[in-house]
Amino acid sequence: MKAPIIALLTDFGFADEYVGVMKGVILKINPKANIVDICHDIPAQDIVKAAYILGASYKFFPKGTIFVAVVDPGVGSTRRIICAKVAEYYFLVPDNGVLSYVLENQKLQSAYEVTNRRFWLDKISDTFHGRDIFAPVAAYLSKGVAPHKLGRKVSVLKTVPLTKPAVSRGSIEGQILFTDRFGNYITNIDANMLNKIKYKKLTIKFGRHRLDGISRSYSEVKAGLPLAILGSRGLLEISVNKGNAEKILKLKKETKVLIKPR
Amino acid sequence: MKAPIIALLTDFGFADEYVGVMKGVILKINPKANIVDICHDIPAQDIVKAAYILGASYKFFPKGTIFVAVVDPGVGSTRRIICAKVAEYYFLVPDNGVLSYVLENQKLQSAYEVTNRRFWLDKISDTFHGRDIFAPVAAYLSKGVAPHKLGRKVSVLKTVPLTKPAVSRGSIEGQILFTDRFGNYITNIDANMLNKIKYKKLTIKFGRHRLDGISRSYSEVKAGLPLAILGSRGLLEISVNKGNAEKILKLKKETKVLIKPR
Amino acid sequence: MKAPIIALLTDFGFADEYVGVMKGVILKINPKANIVDICHDIPAQDIVKAAYILGASYKFFPKGTIFVAVVDPGVGSTRRIICAKVAEYYFLVPDNGVLSYVLENQKLQSAYEVTNRRFWLDKISDTFHGRDIFAPVAAYLSKGVAPHKLGRKVSVLKTVPLTKPAVSRGSIEGQILFTDRFGNYITNIDANMLNKIKYKKLTIKFGRHRLDGISRSYSEVKAGLPLAILGSRGLLEISVNKGNAEKILKLKKETKVLIKPR
Repeated sequence: MKAPIIALLTDFGFADEYVGVMKGVILKINPKANIVDICHDIPAQDIVKAAYILGASYKFFPKGTIFVAVVDPGVGSTRRIICAKVAEYYFLVPDNGVLSYVLENQKLQSAYEVTNRRFWLDKISDTFHGRDIFAPVAAYLSKGVAPHKLGRKVSVLKTVPLTKPAVSRGSIEGQILFTDRFGNYITNIDANMLNKIKYKKLTIKFGRHRLDGISRSYSEVKAGLPLAILGSRGLLEISVNKGNAEKILKLKKETKVLIKPR
Repeated sequence: MKAPIIALLTDFGFADEYVGVMKGVILKINPKANIVDICHDIPAQDIVKAAYILGASYKFFPKGTIFVAVVDPGVGSTRRIICAKVAEYYFLVPDNGVLSYVLENQKLQSAYEVTNRRFWLDKISDTFHGRDIFAPVAAYLSKGVAPHKLGRKVSVLKTVPLTKPAVSRGSIEGQILFTDRFGNYITNIDANMLNKIKYKKLTIKFGRHRLDGISRSYSEVKAGLPLAILGSRGLLEISVNKGNAEKILKLKKETKVLIKPR
Repeated sequence: MKAPIIALLTDFGFADEYVGVMKGVILKINPKANIVDICHDIPAQDIVKAAYILGASYKFFPKGTIFVAVVDPGVGSTRRIICAKVAEYYFLVPDNGVLSYVLENQKLQSAYEVTNRRFWLDKISDTFHGRDIFAPVAAYLSKGVAPHKLGRKVSVLKTVPLTKPAVSRGSIEGQILFTDRFGNYITNIDANMLNKIKYKKLTIKFGRHRLDGISRSYSEVKAGLPLAILGSRGLLEISVNKGNAEKILKLKKETKVLIKPR
């Protein structure tokens, strides 16, 4: 039988050996492990972006996938490491809120605090638990070790507050969450909220900008002009056709986005 | 039998989940898929650079490899998605010219428009066909689905104009195409063109610079000095020994490069 | 039997096809090769950082792993390519000092100069031996070709000087080596040296800064403040809790770090 996938999400980048040695540790314990990178260029210590990325990713992987998300500014402190089961997936994470977005729409099936040193490396550093704890524990999980062997059961995980838009039948008041590689602004306004505004014609206001309606493709506006489009995560995004919205629009962090009937 | 390789080339970077979820989708459909990254830091929406990279890469992979090149500024518009067979390789690409360089020296064996939704994800977003169409179709191809099942046959693909040097027996007038990670300037002058100039001694002129002859190694000139060298893609490159030519020479985009006998 | 891991370390980045075609070449020769990326964003031509990264990585991989480290400013010159065996691992490297840190604590078991063209690609470029020599040789090694078939035995490898701290019972005078992705300053002061200072209370001085004692976790100091901590490579690091030390402290290259009893 093929071993389950181990999917890695970190803020480690590729300028150092951090991601590579995690893979070495995993393959030393389980040579058949099937390791997949989700991404490693999460802004350093940005738990909220990591939480969104993880929430947007997991359901596209096969059931049973073991997600290892190491965005861990609290490494070496008393923050717990958790192995959580959600929607038949496994999540090995620092207990710092990185699961917030996954848990928004899904029930926690079970969670164990990772304390059993039998599944860790012999020597634990103060700064790199990704290598010393997360990687070997993931490898043992992929070999069939049951999560309850990792430590005691826990029932409440830490979450970070997910800023939610104010939604009424008449309008939505949301905000910019972050940008992606292309400079698209991702908002916290989702498709369900937009469905609540029954009016066919909408106005989208943000900063000094005002857009009429939501586009279905970038090319609906001329090159260099802004548009609003429903992004791949199910969230409304502000983009520029054939351009980088972040560089062109220069919106402030957490800019408000207001949607009204026209 | 080992499944064929699925080789990915995108402008998605590693700051978001885009590449990772494509892999999740592929592995959900074909757990035995052998996925390889060509590169993901193509400048956003730079079809021409992607075309060159793809042209410089494919022949080093095993026959039967499925290349998935998603540099796709037209996503969501009416641009077609194509599955092309060239030189016994498969290419799954937006029909935007990204195959131009591959097709320069090779015949199109067959091409099908990708329209059969049976091989797509159930829900298709407006902005991320890499995840919703390219990834699942590649996975089905790797499981043995025949390309003609993907949609109707097409015979003409879109190409982007590849700027060609003016070559005579006496001189070559080419230009800079792009730079690589090391700051090397890649020109559109290839080895065959250089062979046409029979003179042993050449002068290479570009911007305010003038070089005597083509070097065989960076170390033929002193550290910090420029040189011309035949690069790994078979194209002439302007480099600086132990330095970054882009930062040191600061040539303008599409600078002309003139080669003459000395 | 599973093929050994081929672990890649380069300064090639992901903006070009360089890493991808190396994988294509390897898989063409050995379709069962298990390729792992250590990292590819080593600063261009930075042999010393590559040497440290390799030294910090190898022992976390399974014995028999074939490390391919291509940070190779001398490509095309007369620098040799070496296949070295150290601690039951194989290293395929340019002979430019990239093995210096591995060899600091380990004996060279054997080394062969890579000259047998039977295991190279047919056509060798002047600028990309990673693709034309390193990748195919690694693939043949992973298929069981014995290192002595690659070329003649050699006994002395080139090393780069590893700057060592001046250590006495009373003090350590070291320096900053480089920074990592998080902006942590990595010094050349290791745990063994620190053990030699018997005093419980230490002062760490660097630039205009002075720290009292070595922390066990970032969170021991307030957010934004500097601290000294023993990093995952066993080397002392200067960091900032929840911040980027490089951006905040702006230390000069090779800044001295002085440790004394308090």
